Amino acid sequence: MNEKEKQKEMAAQAAIEHIETDQVIGIGSGSTIEYFIKLLRQRMLSEELKIAAVPTSYQSAFLCIQNQIPLTTLNEHPELELAIDGADEIDSSLNLIKGAGAALTQEKIVDSMAKRFIIIADESKMVKNLGEKMPIPIEIIPLALACVTKRLKAYTQEFSVREAVKKLGPVITDNGNFIIDAKITNIDNPKTLELELKGIPGVVENGLFIEMAHIAYIGTKTGIIELNR
Amino acid sequence: MNEKEKQKEMAAQAAIEHIETDQVIGIGSGSTIEYFIKLLRQRMLSEELKIAAVPTSYQSAFLCIQNQIPLTTLNEHPELELAIDGADEIDSSLNLIKGAGAALTQEKIVDSMAKRFIIIADESKMVKNLGEKMPIPIEIIPLALACVTKRLKAYTQEFSVREAVKKLGPVITDNGNFIIDAKITNIDNPKTLELELKGIPGVVENGLFIEMAHIAYIGTKTGIIELNR
Repeated sequence: MNEKEKQKEMAAQAAIEHIETDQVIGIGSGSTIEYFIKLLRQRMLSEELKIAAVPTSYQSAFLCIQNQIPLTTLNEHPELELAIDGADEIDSSLNLIKGAGAALTQEKIVDSMAKRFIIIADESKMVKNLGEKMPIPIEIIPLALACVTKRLKAYTQEFSVREAVKKLGPVITDNGNFIIDAKITNIDNPKTLELELKGIPGVVENGLFIEMAHIAYIGTKTGIIELNR
Repeated sequence: MNEKEKQKEMAAQAAIEHIETDQVIGIGSGSTIEYFIKLLRQRMLSEELKIAAVPTSYQSAFLCIQNQIPLTTLNEHPELELAIDGADEIDSSLNLIKGAGAALTQEKIVDSMAKRFIIIADESKMVKNLGEKMPIPIEIIPLALACVTKRLKAYTQEFSVREAVKKLGPVITDNGNFIIDAKITNIDNPKTLELELKGIPGVVENGLFIEMAHIAYIGTKTGIIELNR
């Protein structure tokens, strides 16, 4: 296991300590979450731990099924004790960019319903300013492509529809939509930007998760860092 | 034809005067638009009028097809000379509630791209204050139902998922989503409310169309009223 993978596992290990029996938890998407799900399965086998998981994507649902973690839905359990999720960028205020895996919309829905929303990540995800490494993923209704790109030009000239691999044409999200990746740097007010992007007709959601996460566990070369908001 | 239908046709007749050859126009949804499409067909037959239409729903697309009005898409023609649409409530500032026909999301996308967005309606749609007759339709991702209703309680206790007729369970929109109808009255700042409702995770769009329409033709018992913004 390389250093980055070790850091992901370390972060997942820190988050797993929050799990107690009879909880309903949101389970995010991404490579770091895979470690979390495996650790969760181990705890369920070694203890009498009963939990139910609300997945945030087909990926997280399938991983839960493979690991025999019972699934439920947000409509049955609107109040989640915890949501555990990864992130693509994290600043020191625990604001995030998410959506490299195109699961941002369901993630934001599920994560927003958790009493404690916990991020797990390796240290490469920490940034000084949101947007410095990653473009902001924006989920849009396909017929609104020209509508959204016209409005996006007020923010950036650097954006593109995410192209699929192993499928012709654009990536299609779990909700049947497109993803635009928009490179926006020098974000003065990320909360305002989050709401402005969402306000564009045809935008379903965007990958700015501002003032949402409560705790982040960041795996580093020298151990775990915990951030709190 | 009863009085209300006469008023709808009168409004459609006023709007049709804006149509010139070689325009690409957005065509809304609803019963008033049916009159517009029929009048448009008549003009296309009697004159050498060439237009292409961007529909805002399956209903408007099918009506165009029936009337041999050539269809195009917003992605091919992002700049529309005109969009003609109906409304469910119209205030004196030309702010609207739309979405009784569940087509609000595509309508907002298309209508927002028009140089001139023209409303046609009968006088029963005029209100002093938005929300006084109609609930606000809100299109949501199905798995976000509990998430959205929890947040809506900050605005109103009176809301429900729109139930389908001729189909079990909820109405499914052209985008595969649900509609929540939320009764919200005493709206102090409709633009802020529009953006706040859209900001809720899981909300795809809402039926407040604020500062969008440029002209409204309202059919009344005593003739046509024209409103401008």
